[in-house]
Amino acid sequence: MTRILLLGAGRSASALIQYLLRQTTQHNWHLTIADVNPTPLHPLLQPYAERAAAVAFEISEQEKLSQLVAEHDIVISMLPALFHPLVARACLQHRRHLATASYATEEIRAFDAEARSLGLTFLMECGLDPGLDHMSAMPIINEIRAQGGRLTSFKSYCGGLMAPDSEGDNPWRYKFTWNPRNVVVAGQGTARYIERGHPRFIPYQQLFRRVELLEVPGYGEFEGYANRDSLSYRPLYGLEEIPTMLRGTLRRPGYCAAWQALVSLGLTDDSCRLGNAAELPWADLIKSFLPTAPASAPLPARVANYLGLSIEGQEMQRLTWAGLFSDEPVGLPDATPAQLLERLLTAKWQLQPTDHDMIVMQHLFEFELGDERRQRTSSLVVTGDDAVHTAMAKTVGLPLGMAVRRLALGRVPHLGVVVPVHADLYEPILDELQADYGIRFLEMEYALA
Amino acid sequence: MTRILLLGAGRSASALIQYLLRQTTQHNWHLTIADVNPTPLHPLLQPYAERAAAVAFEISEQEKLSQLVAEHDIVISMLPALFHPLVARACLQHRRHLATASYATEEIRAFDAEARSLGLTFLMECGLDPGLDHMSAMPIINEIRAQGGRLTSFKSYCGGLMAPDSEGDNPWRYKFTWNPRNVVVAGQGTARYIERGHPRFIPYQQLFRRVELLEVPGYGEFEGYANRDSLSYRPLYGLEEIPTMLRGTLRRPGYCAAWQALVSLGLTDDSCRLGNAAELPWADLIKSFLPTAPASAPLPARVANYLGLSIEGQEMQRLTWAGLFSDEPVGLPDATPAQLLERLLTAKWQLQPTDHDMIVMQHLFEFELGDERRQRTSSLVVTGDDAVHTAMAKTVGLPLGMAVRRLALGRVPHLGVVVPVHADLYEPILDELQADYGIRFLEMEYALA
Repeated sequence: MTRILLLGAGRSASALIQYLLRQTTQHNWHLTIADVNPTPLHPLLQPYAERAAAVAFEISEQEKLSQLVAEHDIVISMLPALFHPLVARACLQHRRHLATASYATEEIRAFDAEARSLGLTFLMECGLDPGLDHMSAMPIINEIRAQGGRLTSFKSYCGGLMAPDSEGDNPWRYKFTWNPRNVVVAGQGTARYIERGHPRFIPYQQLFRRVELLEVPGYGEFEGYANRDSLSYRPLYGLEEIPTMLRGTLRRPGYCAAWQALVSLGLTDDSCRLGNAAELPWADLIKSFLPTAPASAPLPARVANYLGLSIEGQEMQRLTWAGLFSDEPVGLPDATPAQLLERLLTAKWQLQPTDHDMIVMQHLFEFELGDERRQRTSSLVVTGDDAVHTAMAKTVGLPLGMAVRRLALGRVPHLGVVVPVHADLYEPILDELQADYGIRFLEMEYALA
Repeated sequence: MTRILLLGAGRSASALIQYLLRQTTQHNWHLTIADVNPTPLHPLLQPYAERAAAVAFEISEQEKLSQLVAEHDIVISMLPALFHPLVARACLQHRRHLATASYATEEIRAFDAEARSLGLTFLMECGLDPGLDHMSAMPIINEIRAQGGRLTSFKSYCGGLMAPDSEGDNPWRYKFTWNPRNVVVAGQGTARYIERGHPRFIPYQQLFRRVELLEVPGYGEFEGYANRDSLSYRPLYGLEEIPTMLRGTLRRPGYCAAWQALVSLGLTDDSCRLGNAAELPWADLIKSFLPTAPASAPLPARVANYLGLSIEGQEMQRLTWAGLFSDEPVGLPDATPAQLLERLLTAKWQLQPTDHDMIVMQHLFEFELGDERRQRTSSLVVTGDDAVHTAMAKTVGLPLGMAVRRLALGRVPHLGVVVPVHADLYEPILDELQADYGIRFLEMEYALA
């Protein structure tokens, strides 16, 4: 019997749990799910009787973590990424394999040699982004190379959005399907990428102004803004010399210009507590961010004037819809602007029970083949079933579950810290995603002028 | 004999050291100066023979710190402020008084009760800003109150600039007379102040756009930008209810608009290393921060266009003078934008041996007296003698030295963490500054319309 431990059963774990449960009977597994709040899991686990259990666990319980890890063969962590080093150390101590959907950070990579020497596999970046991005890009890169093509550009975008039928009258065409805080503080710092051999930097205050338009067949237009670090992906993909490499985040057109207005107002800063009362109305908070002006001018007009926006424009329409000019109380005392904005948007951007979210991923490759310049695009769209069985949960959880299945079956020959750029790892996962879940990339290729 | 220990003999300690040395013979003191590099101090100390010594010391030498503190009665720390808690703990351990020119942070204030119970005085904020600002504002606040006036507004600005005769052709009219790094990253976060009873917030990306013009009699115009935190000063000055309170930093007109251009380009970010080569020319670095454009357009025109500036304007003139468009190498490998900018400006903004720096401080009070609304301004201008005996070193070091003198003479009746808002502390210091150094504030008062 293979004993599998899942740490953390938050919102994005639903598809993973269902996948793992289905495997328990097929492969003689036992699954333990450890979460701060295990009660809601009980009905779900009941049909699996002896094969699955849910236990209460908080990451502060270090001894319990050690004991749980000791009692299992493979540990899956869906905890917030900052706890992964703790979990990894427990895995080393008890000689257990580890799998996560999070980045193989420097801190995690530091465990590589020890994990290797103990015969352990630490599977990292096995979710959506990072995860499915690597798995889907690698076969294309390999194929173009096998044809004798020379890759000159690789841009890759991903976003968690709303299916068109669930956008309703929300002008942002966006709701939270992932950690809201990460969305609110996204992009702070300086984004790095490379374009035609030249490094490119975009500071935070320009990031949402400098977007690129993309088209996904059948789903219309999207806009992409650059992620913090695109450069570290070149060695990962064996593309050390590729002249253009960019990774970005997708939103629906107009989102970024309106988000830029929030940045310019100062509402995304998370470094300074405002000393405000919880009862402060949003309109008064916004006034506090404006220069002194005749009190007679209406607030939206003052904001539009301050930011150089049209009062009738789409940015102002989105800000108004979000409630920036309302009398609604901000709701948290002595908070940072980012905390208040997160609270406001969490109310407006909450997934309703019957909402369908939508994951969009697009890779754009350019390459030279003989005398010809060609482009290949590879696009994925996955739609959620409802607010629990989201596209986000499927695309994060299924690749991870499938990677764990292969690890449990002894079919992952790689030791140490491993990311899914190996064909023997990603090929069966891509096949399983397509055959069993209809999750497949649509590819198009054509000659460039 | 009173044994005094000075930790740190950096650039702003020159006037303090000279002041303390003069006191040694008068008051039977012994002064020990502990610095990483004590050699240059030896000629200076030679005339004081038995009364003064310089020793080598690094803050990492914890045992030596403990020993030095134990051997003295009063400890003055001119070390970087982050080391003050270490020094304060050693002072508590050995029951020694402490004096610094740095902020009484939360961490330092936490020592208050213990210092009090041990009969110790920890004199904080005894330099220029913080220091002389408190000392010079308090008597005016007290005087207006004693007249029966009601304070409605207190704005206070300070800046370390260049005397007009030393500005030369430098269009920024600025050089570094203080920690360059602090100047480069100044204002990051969100600035807080209060205006007519309403809190006001300015995010970093707007800070250098939202300046106020000031006039200092005889010295022309200055512009002020808001400091990070103006609100915590209300209780300090006993002005909890004052409707307007702002503290700001002074620059010469035009500086802030040009600095805003550096912020907008992304050159003040200190959170992201660029992976650059040390040999990278500045012009190429700047290109990396611009969106893709026809390579044919000259770089300054591209920058002006990107930032919405006039190519002939004063901002572009300052950026050009600073060397942003030059072929000069950036000089540091894999650095943050802020580190590269600091290095560039340190070369351009270095004080020359015969340069005169200039400290400017201005308080602006508004108050109601009976039916009348009145304004009182209090302005200080101090000019440096040369690049060693700077106005900065004088205005930081002399108030601190004078405070230490009073402490050594047993004339500071306050225990615990003390800042100079007490008349028995600041009055004799203001008198001594005026009588012996000609450092005095010019006051003007008039009725407001």
